[in-house]
Amino acid sequence: MKAEIIAVGTELLLGQIVNTNAQFLSRECAARGIDIYFQTVVGDNEQRLLASLQLAASRADVVICTGGLGPTQDDLTKDVLASFTGRKLVLHEPSMDAITAMFTSRGIHMVESNRRQALMLEGSDPLQNDTGLAVGNALTFNGTHFVLLPGPPKEMKPMFMNYAVPWLQSLMTDEVPLYSKMLKFAGIGESNLEHQLLDLIQAQSDPTIAPYAKEGEVTIRLTTRAHSAAEGEEKLKATEEEIKRRLGEYLYADQDVPIETIVLQLLAESKQTLAVAESCTGGLLSDLITAVPGSSTSFLGGIIVYSNALKHKLLDVPMEVLEGEGAPGAVSSETAVILAEQLLVRTGSDFGISVTGVAGPSPSEGKPVGLVYVGLAQKDAKTEVFTLQLSGNREFIKQRAAKRALYQLWKQLKEN
Amino acid sequence: MKAEIIAVGTELLLGQIVNTNAQFLSRECAARGIDIYFQTVVGDNEQRLLASLQLAASRADVVICTGGLGPTQDDLTKDVLASFTGRKLVLHEPSMDAITAMFTSRGIHMVESNRRQALMLEGSDPLQNDTGLAVGNALTFNGTHFVLLPGPPKEMKPMFMNYAVPWLQSLMTDEVPLYSKMLKFAGIGESNLEHQLLDLIQAQSDPTIAPYAKEGEVTIRLTTRAHSAAEGEEKLKATEEEIKRRLGEYLYADQDVPIETIVLQLLAESKQTLAVAESCTGGLLSDLITAVPGSSTSFLGGIIVYSNALKHKLLDVPMEVLEGEGAPGAVSSETAVILAEQLLVRTGSDFGISVTGVAGPSPSEGKPVGLVYVGLAQKDAKTEVFTLQLSGNREFIKQRAAKRALYQLWKQLKEN
Repeated sequence: MKAEIIAVGTELLLGQIVNTNAQFLSRECAARGIDIYFQTVVGDNEQRLLASLQLAASRADVVICTGGLGPTQDDLTKDVLASFTGRKLVLHEPSMDAITAMFTSRGIHMVESNRRQALMLEGSDPLQNDTGLAVGNALTFNGTHFVLLPGPPKEMKPMFMNYAVPWLQSLMTDEVPLYSKMLKFAGIGESNLEHQLLDLIQAQSDPTIAPYAKEGEVTIRLTTRAHSAAEGEEKLKATEEEIKRRLGEYLYADQDVPIETIVLQLLAESKQTLAVAESCTGGLLSDLITAVPGSSTSFLGGIIVYSNALKHKLLDVPMEVLEGEGAPGAVSSETAVILAEQLLVRTGSDFGISVTGVAGPSPSEGKPVGLVYVGLAQKDAKTEVFTLQLSGNREFIKQRAAKRALYQLWKQLKEN
Repeated sequence: MKAEIIAVGTELLLGQIVNTNAQFLSRECAARGIDIYFQTVVGDNEQRLLASLQLAASRADVVICTGGLGPTQDDLTKDVLASFTGRKLVLHEPSMDAITAMFTSRGIHMVESNRRQALMLEGSDPLQNDTGLAVGNALTFNGTHFVLLPGPPKEMKPMFMNYAVPWLQSLMTDEVPLYSKMLKFAGIGESNLEHQLLDLIQAQSDPTIAPYAKEGEVTIRLTTRAHSAAEGEEKLKATEEEIKRRLGEYLYADQDVPIETIVLQLLAESKQTLAVAESCTGGLLSDLITAVPGSSTSFLGGIIVYSNALKHKLLDVPMEVLEGEGAPGAVSSETAVILAEQLLVRTGSDFGISVTGVAGPSPSEGKPVGLVYVGLAQKDAKTEVFTLQLSGNREFIKQRAAKRALYQLWKQLKEN
């Protein structure tokens, strides 16, 4: 089924809030084989909302609206759909009773406008609001299915999941559901990855192959239609194996998780611990790791040796390595090695990662912006150093350096 | 001027990412007197993108597109606008040189598709990309002004602010320009702040008063129309002074900067240094600080004492404070004090901030999610501890705790 989402609200057009509803609905629809072709945001304006409904009805099977079901004069969605479909608005008694009861229980005088929240289009199906007052609506008009949901996410989400989804699924009995799988890659850029899969991407039909990138990670989503997970896996198998054959060394997960989650999982499984020493990433690497619930099992902590003084005081990098004529300097493989190895001594961790480089905006020690050294020390093994030349602004370089450090640790953990 | 935003990308329609670009552009346009009437999201599909451009051109003065400027076969925005306007795509040499230089400097083989990022519509104005490879475009066709921006926010935002805004403003010469001022608050929640200004917000006409919140910070934007900065300041003065009278103790800047920028400024002015000890924020506080260029002047570094072992080993918190029957525990004001004070000893900094708490999702040491202690130690002064009870998920709590720690340091620096 082809679908569109229309979010109604001037606050969205003023940029006061972000349209997270569209993301939520798109994701939940995609997972159920309802394909979203357009998302639209329109203000609390009768003409423009009507034009948006007309356009959506002319090209989609399903039109999902969020917002504009509240009590105020600005809340127009039901009125406009009523005039578009030529239906009357009628009172939904159970919703009216719930509204009255709420005001009574809180001892507040109910202003008349609250009655508007219990209105529904004649001949539509009410969608119950378990977490708010405005009743939702679902109806079919001239072959288009309309679903009206409230704007606040805490009302919209449960109404959609508990009442709108079953209503939509009752219309889709003959369709085969979508089955998707995410493959996650690190240590390789989006254009390089796509280049290596170009023939597959260009020839794709079933499954479809969709690559996309976030900072320091690339994702490929494989999608097919299948009646069961087993059938889905079978249909994806040949494509997945071909991708793995070409890019297996960068593939860290077959689900949508960041690389830090997998690194922490591998550390926990092998009962090993990690500590980090950050210079140019300035805490970001630790922040990514500690964003994962349960990271405390394997992550002991870190030392942010931002200044040379702390590189020397806290992790024993000799001042003659850091400064002076002919010294390797803070941004050097020598410093990266000492930082990583001293972590093992100071914290007792099994692994020590260090990151030192030039995040910019200006060069440092005569070294270019984007030059980064990652040190990887491991108990009873030789310390390795990886030299990176990263591009982008300060924020990008911090992000890419942190992700590359995690990638190197992931590779080491896989090899062990 | 009437404007529309078209975001291009199947990943938005699949709900894989949220359209924060539309919010950013809407807010920035609103602040400059450009009224957004519609936001549209369309996939990487030639026909549907063309239909969206035609529709937008038929009803708006300005059409701002984001996304679809990358190197892959999916990146269609320039091609589709070229066919809509009947213009050719030509190579923008400076962008091509930058792309080639970037690949050469990193020693990576450049795949041919990267050339696509340097293409622009014939007769358009290039919009320079300071943080990525794809060049933007601005052009006027049949009375509609088109602006093409890249999809990644880190590239889109600087390109819009530095190059697209001046281009758009050059079209708006007869309008009395908008004059805006941002007031930035920390240490107070959005609803509390709004509550204290409710009468002003409800009675607003000129200047307009628009509050909005990011994690741990609240911004008020005052806007009027004025021919000069002096006239603008004069027209904002009475409102600004009334706001300051009510909420001055939370107001840390009258420009749009994060609190860490002001803290670093105050530290640099007084030639003082800072070190941090992070437990529950796990590196985020350091990451925020080191995101500011030049932070190395005053920020020595930090110690991420995520585990109790490191709290003991690296910052000398006695094990009997951390663990055992009746011990205060890691999440306690005792631990916060020792961590902050030991920072001064270990790093030689003038200020030491410590953050220890329960970020969740589960309680810890029998203490509730959101309980956080911030310690603030200062050379030759008594160490202070602030107890916070924060709400939200793990990410929110980390963010709010880090911002509150910065707020406490800012207050101290103002008092000194």
